[in-house]
Amino acid sequence: MTGGPGPLAPGSVIGVLGGGQLGRMLALAAARLGFSTAVLTPDPHAPAAQVAGLTIAADYDDPGALEALAGASDVVTFEFENVPARALEALGRLGARIAPSALALATAQDRVEEKTFLNAAGIPTVAFRPVDGEADLRAALDVLGAPVLLKSRRGGYDGKGQAWVRAEADIGPALLAMEGAPAIAEAAARFRRELAMIAARGAGGATAFFPLTESHHENGVLRRTRAPAEAAPALVAEAQTLAGRLLVALDYVGVLGLELFEIEGGRLLANEFAPRVHNTGHWTLDGGGADQFEQHVRAITGWPLGPTAPRAQVEMTNLLGAEVEAWPELAADPGARLWLYGKRQAVAGRKMGHVNRPSPLASGEGSE
Amino acid sequence: MTGGPGPLAPGSVIGVLGGGQLGRMLALAAARLGFSTAVLTPDPHAPAAQVAGLTIAADYDDPGALEALAGASDVVTFEFENVPARALEALGRLGARIAPSALALATAQDRVEEKTFLNAAGIPTVAFRPVDGEADLRAALDVLGAPVLLKSRRGGYDGKGQAWVRAEADIGPALLAMEGAPAIAEAAARFRRELAMIAARGAGGATAFFPLTESHHENGVLRRTRAPAEAAPALVAEAQTLAGRLLVALDYVGVLGLELFEIEGGRLLANEFAPRVHNTGHWTLDGGGADQFEQHVRAITGWPLGPTAPRAQVEMTNLLGAEVEAWPELAADPGARLWLYGKRQAVAGRKMGHVNRPSPLASGEGSE
Repeated sequence: MTGGPGPLAPGSVIGVLGGGQLGRMLALAAARLGFSTAVLTPDPHAPAAQVAGLTIAADYDDPGALEALAGASDVVTFEFENVPARALEALGRLGARIAPSALALATAQDRVEEKTFLNAAGIPTVAFRPVDGEADLRAALDVLGAPVLLKSRRGGYDGKGQAWVRAEADIGPALLAMEGAPAIAEAAARFRRELAMIAARGAGGATAFFPLTESHHENGVLRRTRAPAEAAPALVAEAQTLAGRLLVALDYVGVLGLELFEIEGGRLLANEFAPRVHNTGHWTLDGGGADQFEQHVRAITGWPLGPTAPRAQVEMTNLLGAEVEAWPELAADPGARLWLYGKRQAVAGRKMGHVNRPSPLASGEGSE
Repeated sequence: MTGGPGPLAPGSVIGVLGGGQLGRMLALAAARLGFSTAVLTPDPHAPAAQVAGLTIAADYDDPGALEALAGASDVVTFEFENVPARALEALGRLGARIAPSALALATAQDRVEEKTFLNAAGIPTVAFRPVDGEADLRAALDVLGAPVLLKSRRGGYDGKGQAWVRAEADIGPALLAMEGAPAIAEAAARFRRELAMIAARGAGGATAFFPLTESHHENGVLRRTRAPAEAAPALVAEAQTLAGRLLVALDYVGVLGLELFEIEGGRLLANEFAPRVHNTGHWTLDGGGADQFEQHVRAITGWPLGPTAPRAQVEMTNLLGAEVEAWPELAADPGARLWLYGKRQAVAGRKMGHVNRPSPLASGEGSE
């Protein structure tokens, strides 16, 4: 069935493309509000499948599976931006209510289109150039200045498919690392720190912004965040302005994560955005108002957005690969709020869970 | 498979007898800690079935279903105390690790055995007498003094199967209301207020107590709670002492709810206990340390108990029957944390969800 424009009543079904931890935490939030979840994932044992009311185990572009998902769901969302855009198009043809839109997904899937879109929406990024071969890369080095970061335009995540080009000798290996795929060369951002803004827009156009999060990556993978970030009110306001422009430009419905660089002089540049709940928002589970997962469910079901004022200062640490084996110590630590994703294989670097450590807010921050 | 005595690793499966809202919220807590849930319930659309990794839709005493549950689960618990004791016995014969024990369940299932057990453990209750017919009821009136509250010994909940006997004329109708089943006559408790203690005991014998909760019933059904209750430290200490005696006497593993009357003079009498998570503990979802559901999961899996110091003052209100239709207003109220149970039929008086309203703790209460 397809939903109308009004808010979906409790008992409605939220379809999710993707079965990872983001889908799992979306399903938990959906259940709190009386919804159930239908998950389409190739892996019947995926983290979200374990808590979904219905699991459709199939490839994302399996026509019968998409038909089953559209039939079971009152609204369909995605938890993973490498879902094929044609899957969303097929769901649209089947009459499914979809949020966020296929435009948001398609824009985020191609780094050149993404940065072009951001700039056109008045959101500054580092300078960049598309790279389809050696001549393009040499031209990019000339225009942007060394070093440049070469990335595949599509499909990379957590630092995969990236290579720094610092000198002539790096050109060949960097192009080889792209495996012939279209690429983007980005100017190096001389940033002080990385920040993220988790923002939401409801079906009626209302927006809400969680506090700014400071994020720390290692080897291209998010390691930990601290939120609310220490930041002057003007910086927070700028981040909200940039995220607000993006929400409006995309006519967005749902939660998105906008990754930002704070550069010298206190200005912000957008790095990229994820049209979904985001790892830098996991702290909200133990310190946000409505957490980011509830907020996404509220937005896509047409409910009013929930409160975003923080309840606590939270340090979030990802548990990568074998780090999850520390669960006995973490379980015994009264200051640690543990979230584990139900993944069977602790492959090196894989996100297996996270730990939130809440502490009281400095006075004057937030309110209940 | 059956678990050993050590803590169960994430990825283990928690079996739950019963598919109601308590099972649903247990499954959500289990998922946070990386566990999955197998639910045995006669209703395949039950609230817990919507979030379980495996649903076995069958009667509680179906031998094949119990075998399937024992086979799928690393530990089995129950969310509902009217599960037949023989179902737990059968699971025990199948080698399942069970918590809380069959003794706790059987004791709570019979109001005479329950009060006898409480008194023997040093936990005072109102005076009572078993009633198997008119002569017993007349004798109870003589000994206990009018009025007495006549209840079926087994199976009643939320005020069902109860009748006040104030005078001669009430005797016949009250006995009729028991439908020939064994009953208990209880002396009227002249109480100031009703309180509840949500307590936990881990596999190693450690105990933990949530703050005392003040509860308000209407027509025998819990209407709202306020926690932490305003109470002198000596009263809190007495409640913990009583709950601690019960935990030890039952050699209990898990969370239980002990309902208390505060009588004139500030003394406490036990009303009854539930060998499971309890409606008076729902406030912990938005104001406890580890909430009662996480605490139960920790206890039955052999994990260390979590913190119980409150994070907020919380007023909890049950949404009964058609009251759940107020969801649009509640969704728009930033002070309301809404929990809906996914029940399809809003039968009058049925618990459809609850609302927690957290507010800052008075200074000096609790700590992070």
